Amino acid sequence: MAAAAYSDEGFHGRLAAHRHAVEARLAQLTPGDGPVPALLAEAARYAVLAPAKRLRPVLTLLAAEQFGGEASAGALDFGCALEMVHAASLVLDDLPCMDDARLRRGQPALHRRYGEDVAVLAAISLLNEAYAVTARAPGLDAEQRLALVERLGAVIGFRGLAAGQISDLRDRSPLTSQAALHDLNHQKTGLLFVAAVEGGAIAAGAPPAALGVAQGFGRKLGEAFQILDDLIDVSSTSEVAGKDVGQDGGKTTVVSLIGPEAARIEMRRRLDAAIAHLDDAGPGPLSRFAEALFGAAPAAA
Amino acid sequence: MAAAAYSDEGFHGRLAAHRHAVEARLAQLTPGDGPVPALLAEAARYAVLAPAKRLRPVLTLLAAEQFGGEASAGALDFGCALEMVHAASLVLDDLPCMDDARLRRGQPALHRRYGEDVAVLAAISLLNEAYAVTARAPGLDAEQRLALVERLGAVIGFRGLAAGQISDLRDRSPLTSQAALHDLNHQKTGLLFVAAVEGGAIAAGAPPAALGVAQGFGRKLGEAFQILDDLIDVSSTSEVAGKDVGQDGGKTTVVSLIGPEAARIEMRRRLDAAIAHLDDAGPGPLSRFAEALFGAAPAAA
Repeated sequence: MAAAAYSDEGFHGRLAAHRHAVEARLAQLTPGDGPVPALLAEAARYAVLAPAKRLRPVLTLLAAEQFGGEASAGALDFGCALEMVHAASLVLDDLPCMDDARLRRGQPALHRRYGEDVAVLAAISLLNEAYAVTARAPGLDAEQRLALVERLGAVIGFRGLAAGQISDLRDRSPLTSQAALHDLNHQKTGLLFVAAVEGGAIAAGAPPAALGVAQGFGRKLGEAFQILDDLIDVSSTSEVAGKDVGQDGGKTTVVSLIGPEAARIEMRRRLDAAIAHLDDAGPGPLSRFAEALFGAAPAAA
Repeated sequence: MAAAAYSDEGFHGRLAAHRHAVEARLAQLTPGDGPVPALLAEAARYAVLAPAKRLRPVLTLLAAEQFGGEASAGALDFGCALEMVHAASLVLDDLPCMDDARLRRGQPALHRRYGEDVAVLAAISLLNEAYAVTARAPGLDAEQRLALVERLGAVIGFRGLAAGQISDLRDRSPLTSQAALHDLNHQKTGLLFVAAVEGGAIAAGAPPAALGVAQGFGRKLGEAFQILDDLIDVSSTSEVAGKDVGQDGGKTTVVSLIGPEAARIEMRRRLDAAIAHLDDAGPGPLSRFAEALFGAAPAAA
């Protein structure tokens, strides 16, 4: 990798290129015209192709660069699979029987536009397509693709997103410790970040030791990001955030537990801990990305 | 294979043993006490471990015998994964925003017992666990496990169960031809039968030619089974069927299109076509199973 790519300007150009590649590939991978029922395809495209930051697939591409030197087509497809999982989880979270949200990514929540039945079936289809895309990710051998499939398995179900969501909706006992809160956030947010970073490393053919580094970085970055998200919830408007805000009102967050100023310090600590996992000789793609992401953090409310 | 195993008595004993093995393995594979949130695990066990015929996993085990001589642990786990997919699809079909069913497998539908949020999350978790179980199926190499993952991918989403369900719920145009109806039924029922038979063949290490045979048999068997299911719907009571019946009242089925007597003849034709795909020297496990299953078909209403 040329050092020039990691000048400020070079790095921001590279980020933009990655985001562009993700948008283009997502549009290819999400069904459109063809054998898929039109309503199902339309709903899926509505959920996946709405304006979004694409943090998880960009992380996968940067991790592939960090651990193997190159953002490959296989890493791109796995990143897109994670974005499908993320979009599906938002559709499900927004359902009337869950958070009953009105607005998502600047537009009506999927079930308000297409109906609950279509929302559920589009979400299921996207989760499934994430597996299908991963299983045939180009340029990777069977062992790599199977390892990526197993990473998806850890993210979604009984020990992942569904577990986090059920705890969030149904646990009667208030969360009083930061530790309990971080466990919940790890299931709802952190595991996807871990899978994004680790998946990039797997796609790049990184050795087992690097996978440990990837996991450690992803976990701490996810914790920092959850605090950022909670800070946005208390300090933003729906128009700016593009989704319902102030919804955490009844829920315990790090911000509600310790206040926004202490939360910002916690966020910074976790960000530093994430970066400390990396043994960059100089600023590499993952540490540069983490700094750029949190440089945009809102001021304390 | 000893011919004795396929005497009537030997074969029924073998079927019972397969069913028993499936029940025991499903109970192991579905989360119970442990790291999974208790409510999520309880709901999943409610959905999966209720009394059921286990047709799909038994088909997988018999297909492994038919095409490779032995029902292996890998075939058993893939069969159990298909049973998880089947149970999850029933939970979703029963939701208020879909068929709004009250009764399933002789007990209240999952959402009526645990709430809609839990029902959706348990179904998602079961679909996901099907992938996790398949990805680590014992005794199979990476290529085989990946091939099985790809089979699952074809069953569930944009071109499978979700596509069939959305067409069933939302298509305004009445189905007037048997061909259109069979396309719909193939997505809702047939693909799982195909995956069950083909998966058994894959797990048994069968050559590509055998996979074509497995697909042909599974497809025709699924068509015959769908007609059987429609016949049960018009001729049974909820108590006997263990689920809401008469629900097809507003829907087009082969039975409503051509009447029960002609439907029975169609069913038999498809069953014969299924068996014709097999080039058994004598009665093998799949043809024996098909005959046994349809020997129990209800008399024309």
